[in-house]
Amino acid sequence: MAKDKKLVEAITSMEEDFAQWYTDVVKKAELIDYTSVKGCMVIKPAGYAIWENIQHELDRRFKETGVQNVYLPMFIPESLLQKEKDHVEGFAPEVAWVTMGGLEPLQEKICVRPTSETLFCDFYANDVHSYRDLPRVYNQWCSVVRWEKTTRPFLRSREFLWQEGHTAHATAEEAEERTIQMLNVYADFCEEALAIPVIKGRKTDKEKFAGAEATYTIESLMHDGKALQSGTSHNFGDGFAKAFGIQFTDKDNTLKYVHQTSWGLSTRMIGGIIMVHGDNSGLVLPPFIAPVQVMVIPVQMQKEGVLDKAREIEQALAQAGLRVKLDDSEKSPGWKFSDQEMRGIPVRVELGPKDIEAGQAVIVRRDTREKIFAPIGELAGRIRETLDVMQKDMLERARAHRDAHTYTAHDLAELKDIADNKPGFIKAMWCGCRECEDALKEEAGVTSRCIPFEQEKIGDVCVYCGKPAKKMVYWGKAY
Amino acid sequence: MAKDKKLVEAITSMEEDFAQWYTDVVKKAELIDYTSVKGCMVIKPAGYAIWENIQHELDRRFKETGVQNVYLPMFIPESLLQKEKDHVEGFAPEVAWVTMGGLEPLQEKICVRPTSETLFCDFYANDVHSYRDLPRVYNQWCSVVRWEKTTRPFLRSREFLWQEGHTAHATAEEAEERTIQMLNVYADFCEEALAIPVIKGRKTDKEKFAGAEATYTIESLMHDGKALQSGTSHNFGDGFAKAFGIQFTDKDNTLKYVHQTSWGLSTRMIGGIIMVHGDNSGLVLPPFIAPVQVMVIPVQMQKEGVLDKAREIEQALAQAGLRVKLDDSEKSPGWKFSDQEMRGIPVRVELGPKDIEAGQAVIVRRDTREKIFAPIGELAGRIRETLDVMQKDMLERARAHRDAHTYTAHDLAELKDIADNKPGFIKAMWCGCRECEDALKEEAGVTSRCIPFEQEKIGDVCVYCGKPAKKMVYWGKAY
Repeated sequence: MAKDKKLVEAITSMEEDFAQWYTDVVKKAELIDYTSVKGCMVIKPAGYAIWENIQHELDRRFKETGVQNVYLPMFIPESLLQKEKDHVEGFAPEVAWVTMGGLEPLQEKICVRPTSETLFCDFYANDVHSYRDLPRVYNQWCSVVRWEKTTRPFLRSREFLWQEGHTAHATAEEAEERTIQMLNVYADFCEEALAIPVIKGRKTDKEKFAGAEATYTIESLMHDGKALQSGTSHNFGDGFAKAFGIQFTDKDNTLKYVHQTSWGLSTRMIGGIIMVHGDNSGLVLPPFIAPVQVMVIPVQMQKEGVLDKAREIEQALAQAGLRVKLDDSEKSPGWKFSDQEMRGIPVRVELGPKDIEAGQAVIVRRDTREKIFAPIGELAGRIRETLDVMQKDMLERARAHRDAHTYTAHDLAELKDIADNKPGFIKAMWCGCRECEDALKEEAGVTSRCIPFEQEKIGDVCVYCGKPAKKMVYWGKAY
Repeated sequence: MAKDKKLVEAITSMEEDFAQWYTDVVKKAELIDYTSVKGCMVIKPAGYAIWENIQHELDRRFKETGVQNVYLPMFIPESLLQKEKDHVEGFAPEVAWVTMGGLEPLQEKICVRPTSETLFCDFYANDVHSYRDLPRVYNQWCSVVRWEKTTRPFLRSREFLWQEGHTAHATAEEAEERTIQMLNVYADFCEEALAIPVIKGRKTDKEKFAGAEATYTIESLMHDGKALQSGTSHNFGDGFAKAFGIQFTDKDNTLKYVHQTSWGLSTRMIGGIIMVHGDNSGLVLPPFIAPVQVMVIPVQMQKEGVLDKAREIEQALAQAGLRVKLDDSEKSPGWKFSDQEMRGIPVRVELGPKDIEAGQAVIVRRDTREKIFAPIGELAGRIRETLDVMQKDMLERARAHRDAHTYTAHDLAELKDIADNKPGFIKAMWCGCRECEDALKEEAGVTSRCIPFEQEKIGDVCVYCGKPAKKMVYWGKAY
């Protein structure tokens, strides 16, 4: 049995070294592998299956709001990238440039898309003529490239997978409405599907997207008290439209510029799932999004009838619509338990000769290790109940953890003390000026995460300069 | 009414100019748009929805055979691309090279994947250790880049979407079995889902994939008599494994090289759907894959009760599981009929005041224009029947067209005559040597499409050199 436990013992505990724990989990749960291509990763079957489930659920929610999927080129000519001034300044330093096609140098260099605002604008400029053509509510699932110096699996890599929605509207009001609507889609998705509670709010001007009028964000808190920007939704106003000449003839027969939005959520959310729900035995997947929800593990498999019964149960559960697998490998039950726990499979069903004799099996929850004895005939229903409860409990536990690690700072000394000693969100008042934001980063190492929609008045003056405060802001250290 | 017909009149007839007809259809059915990025296209909602349905169905069939999805980087370092000699010779002349990351030149240039054999090999070299790790049956959905000089929407573009499967096996037999298995998956998919009949066979050495031991292909015939290579499946033997050092410890405790396969199908199949099924009114989509299967078009919409009834029917059909839309725009019924036909929506339901009075509606098939009168209460069932029959008829019609355009050549003069005057497949015997194959290309303008699995002995000697023949080959002009 000592040898069997190796799998668990091999990962670093999160209290000892959270970063190493994270790396251990992504490797041992076989979510990713490193490659010869610096800063890029292989997403292995167990990791990609999570992304497929995210895609499937998010795409369904998008389409309910009228989104249509499209595909635009992965390349952006330099001249196109340069059309919107703030945008090119934000992205040019971190793009990959293609300079040769086949054996010949290109006349104009092209970059691999870091994001596709410029391509969608170029497309809409030709595609939109009349108010009848609006709104355009398009989205694409693709990969993008940002030439990062330091990278981490899922959280920051040179290439990552995402969806990017890009819309064009007749009025400013409609664009703002769509921006908020998609932020809400993200927030509901994170809470309902991923069991990750989020704070909805607006980014400060310093932190907003290059070229946006307003950026909205959902922010979540990881187990180590660091924040993760989990999805963003941008309102561009008519800035891009003016740069790209996207005009339409309105009902009143005048020529107007469209108003645009964009919004994205990426594979970094898989990093979020790991860091919100994982524990020292490995990954814990929310049942809703888990590629495998149930692992059936026979005990004393060599005893007559055990494997047959286990197969029968596997089939019955699959027929009941559960995503189930049977571990009938030659390993010991102890090894299999550890392996199932490492992979974050939400429940296992233990089944031995004595269980079979008693007509029962044992359901074990991955998150709490709670054991539930259930008659074999009622297994599917009991597992479904268990998964539902687990999904809810995971959200509530994450919310409780976040609330317990959300602090209030009334002055700079207090803020610095929290930043140094209590990892988490820090709520503090802010005057709205960039200088104070820069200074807080410099002196306390925190960035503004968002100006939450749900404002609380926790003071009258800016935590840094002491001048009258305009907003309460969530501050923190972030991935 | 004259103005309403503009949509139909605007496309070139296929008899007059097939290439222009094709371009007109992809544009007017709003499948694609051109972009500022030379040789790349925008796949618009109507085009992308076809691809989504292809993905969904093919992915389902893949998974039934044990395929797992993964994602590998889009970049290949030059040194990795060069590891297999034939492969680099085949692809290096047509790749896009990234030479700058951000503001700095790269130490080693990297190309955007034209295909991912080298990346999978690099991955498997680290990932596969023991016979227990085999087989690996992985697939990815992604885009690839090939720097083509001349491009055409869907058929040949610098970037295109596809899936590429890459597998590793313990034995040569198992690799060959998987290669053929996936070819059969493609063939069944094309016939059952796309209503496109295919010829299954093996490529000649000249036409096989760079680095493969054997390439198998499915070939289909377009309406203009040109062939379309519709999917390929390659057996690499252990060639790549030796170049990349992919070894495993077998059951007998000896170190062996794996045997590998790869197989791909791309967005070019959308071009195939257009060119097999389309007509002079536009696109005709096979019901199975059509994003919208039914368009409800009210006639005399302004009359009381018509629009209400049309909406009621739309809802009832949607509830019955049909993919249905209602055209309630302000256009005339004639315009709407033309528009629905141009978009290739398999059936329309016409509904006017007199129909409502009679408790019926008219189902019109897109392919034959056949009108079917059906009681409103039975519409869903009758439409489903109609779609099923249409799907079968489309396959049979395409097969009849192909068979009617498949010729047999017994000598060179006959082959040249057919090649010049009768567009289609040409069956002819071949000695197996490269020189004759080159000469047929040179003198008759045809390439070998495949050596079909179903051989017929139509002569004893090679159609070109007169020496003893080894195989019957399908020849033709191809996209």
